[in-house]
This record gives sequence, C-alpha cells and structure tokens, in this order.
Amino acid sequence: MLVERKRIVGIIGGLGPEATLDFFGKILLATTAAKDQDHLHLIIDNNPSAPDRTEAVAGIGPSPADSLACTALRLEQAGAEVLVMVCNTAHAFSSAITDAVQIPFLNIVDVTCEAAIKARPSLRRAGVLATEGALSAGLYEDALEAHGVEHVALGGASRVRFMELIGRIKGGDKSDEVRAGMRSLALELVDLGAELIIAGCTEVPLVLDDEDFKWPLVNSTDALVSRTIQYATYG
Amino acid sequence: MLVERKRIVGIIGGLGPEATLDFFGKILLATTAAKDQDHLHLIIDNNPSAPDRTEAVAGIGPSPADSLACTALRLEQAGAEVLVMVCNTAHAFSSAITDAVQIPFLNIVDVTCEAAIKARPSLRRAGVLATEGALSAGLYEDALEAHGVEHVALGGASRVRFMELIGRIKGGDKSDEVRAGMRSLALELVDLGAELIIAGCTEVPLVLDDEDFKWPLVNSTDALVSRTIQYATYG
Repeated sequence: MLVERKRIVGIIGGLGPEATLDFFGKILLATTAAKDQDHLHLIIDNNPSAPDRTEAVAGIGPSPADSLACTALRLEQAGAEVLVMVCNTAHAFSSAITDAVQIPFLNIVDVTCEAAIKARPSLRRAGVLATEGALSAGLYEDALEAHGVEHVALGGASRVRFMELIGRIKGGDKSDEVRAGMRSLALELVDLGAELIIAGCTEVPLVLDDEDFKWPLVNSTDALVSRTIQYATYG
Repeated sequence: MLVERKRIVGIIGGLGPEATLDFFGKILLATTAAKDQDHLHLIIDNNPSAPDRTEAVAGIGPSPADSLACTALRLEQAGAEVLVMVCNTAHAFSSAITDAVQIPFLNIVDVTCEAAIKARPSLRRAGVLATEGALSAGLYEDALEAHGVEHVALGGASRVRFMELIGRIKGGDKSDEVRAGMRSLALELVDLGAELIIAGCTEVPLVLDDEDFKWPLVNSTDALVSRTIQYATYG
C-alpha cells in the first residue's frame, strides 16, 4: 500500500474566527478528496484572545506578540510541520512566531504578492485593501517594492471607512450595505490607478469576491490556501 | 476590568472534515460576539487519518482507538480544558478518549438524547439516522433506553442506502439528489412510528435541515454546539 504522507499544517487562527473558518472551508474545497482520509491534517488554534493588532502597531494597545508566539509553539508541540496565520495585520509581529518555532512559516503577505505577480506578470501598480495596522507597518508596501511594484492605498477618510467596515464584519455583519461599501473602496483604488486589487485582509473576502467585483482581484486567503495545500503535499 | 474567563475547547475533528467545518461555523454563529475577543478559544485537530469507524466496529478494519486517544491527548497538552468529538460513530471508541485524558469529554450521543427529550418531553419513539457502525455499537439504542425511549432504525436496504449517501457526502456531494434521498430515509422512520428524528451522524445536517424536513428533527451537531458553548461559558 502506497501511503501518501502529507505535512501536518498548524493554523494560527481566531484573528478573527470568521476568517479562520473561511480559510478552513476553502482548504477543504480546494482539496481533491473522495473520502475523509484524503484530506489534510490541520491543527487550528482559534485563539481570539490576542490583543487588537492595529492598536498594537499604533502603540495604543498591548502587543499580540507573546500570544502569537505561544500559539505557534503550542501548534509545533502538537505536531504541526508548517505554520500559517490567517490574518495579514498580525504579520507585523511575524518575527515573534519565527523566533519561537523551528518549523517553517508561510507568510501570507509574501504568498499573496507572488500570486498577484503570477496573475499579472506586467503588474506595476497594485491597490491594497488593508487595515490601518498593516498599512502603518508597511507590510504590502515593502513586499511589493521588492517586486518593483508600486503600492496604492486608500486616503484618509476612506481608510477610516475601511476600518469601520472591518469592525462590522468582525461583528458578524456581511450585509449588502457592507458588501457595497467594500466594493466602492476597491473601486477607489482602481480610480487611483491600481491595475489589480489585493484583498490584503482576510476579512475582506468574506464580503468581496470575483463575482461582486469585475476587476482583477487577488485575495490573500485564496493565495494562502493554494500555497498551503501545495506545501503540505510536498509541492 | 472584568475578564470573563472561558474554558478552552478541544475539538477532535476530521471525522469527517466537512462536519468539523460545519460544527466550527455553527459555534461562531451561536456565539454572541461584537469583536474577535468575544469568541471562544477552540483548538481543532482536524485529523482525517483515523481509520474508518464503521469498518472497525464491524471488525473488518483497524481500530481508530489509538488515533483518537492521541488526538485527545494532543489537545489536552495544547491546553484544552474540555473535549468534544464531531462524529457520532467514533463514540463507539469514546472510552479510548476518556482513558487517555484527565479533562471532561462531552459525549455527543448523550447530549443529543438530552436535547431530544427537552424538545419533546413526552417522547416515546425516536427515529435515528445513524451509520451502520453507530447502530451496531448500539450507541443511540442504549442512550435512548436509559430515558425510556424506543429506538427506531432503518431496515436492511435503507441502511445500505444511508451508507451510500454518507459516502457521497464525504466525497463532497451535497446535491439535490442526495438531499432528497436523505429526506426520504427520514420519512421512512416517520412511517415506522418515529415521533421525532435524530440526525445521529454529523454528516446528515450537511444535507438535511429543518427547512427541508417538516417533522421534529434534532441534529447532533446543533445539540453539541449548544452544550459546548454552555459548558465553555460555565453554564
């Protein structure tokens, strides 16, 4: 009997829980499986107690670094062979994770930028929907710059509006109003010259997808799902 | 600041993965949360490698007992303060779990029977949709008997049909045909005198819900979701 050994994936989740659920569901959907045993072994730590990431980046709240490091270590000790974190903003603290464990960590920002370049090799200007924390930490700005791509972000009032929408999604509101609001912010980035939109926050795909939005869109959840499956199956 | 401490829930999952996702989603939906930090801390071990439970009960396949015990222990070591397992059939091996850990284990069969009695205090005959393995192990039969309730199960050809449908659901098929097939099996139990139907397999709610089926229906996933939230919040 040929045993197809796959890597056990540890998922740092709960940031927020709904985005973690979305990631889990998309992993199952993207896995070719006729029976239970064909699926990946995933260990999900849905730990929503980590302090607010945007507040921490702004220096007005406690750091989630210790919480993230503990979660990462717990997953490694439980047998995870690779880690992913379903939250872009928390990647401002990714060094706390990579310092805490020996196993590899697939960085959602790197993976998403690679997916954007792959989707549009001629990409010059990418519009990024990301939280205030992710923007302040320069997560996508730095990663895109490494690929020679200009980072286009929302301006003042629209950033505030984006954070309001994220707060509503985290409170369970995925209404048409929230969807329309998110679509309209994505279109602002198009008006600012973006050739492609990066959903650089895992809450965004909960209310914005390719069906809603007729412009090249790369979402960070899907990009991480693809890379995770590829890595777990030794791709 | 009042810190509302909640118990960390360990979830033995992957049996199958889609049912685990369904459980996770229903926990989030049933939790009153305005922000991430209001949600429960869940550690989900989605370990689909455990051997087939029905084959093990029939003595024609290896036992999943060791795999379940290891998963339980891993979750306890990771910090879980209570365990649940999202699969009815695997409860035929629940002693392997309770022997392996010190923390409490909320038994889905017990919890579902309690929910059925609560939904219909005068219950005398309950129809149970369960796998061949769960039926052979007498899981619901014994638990209902303790409440003085008669257990009504499908006959030969319909049992085979039920297992075919479960196999299709586990392969990702939630088509109208599968839904109609499941509804028709549930109606057979009504014809056999069941006053209430218990969806005693966590794959069943993926294709059968109250909207499809106009007869008292208690599903084991929902029953376990309610009890888990209640226990985790010290109810």
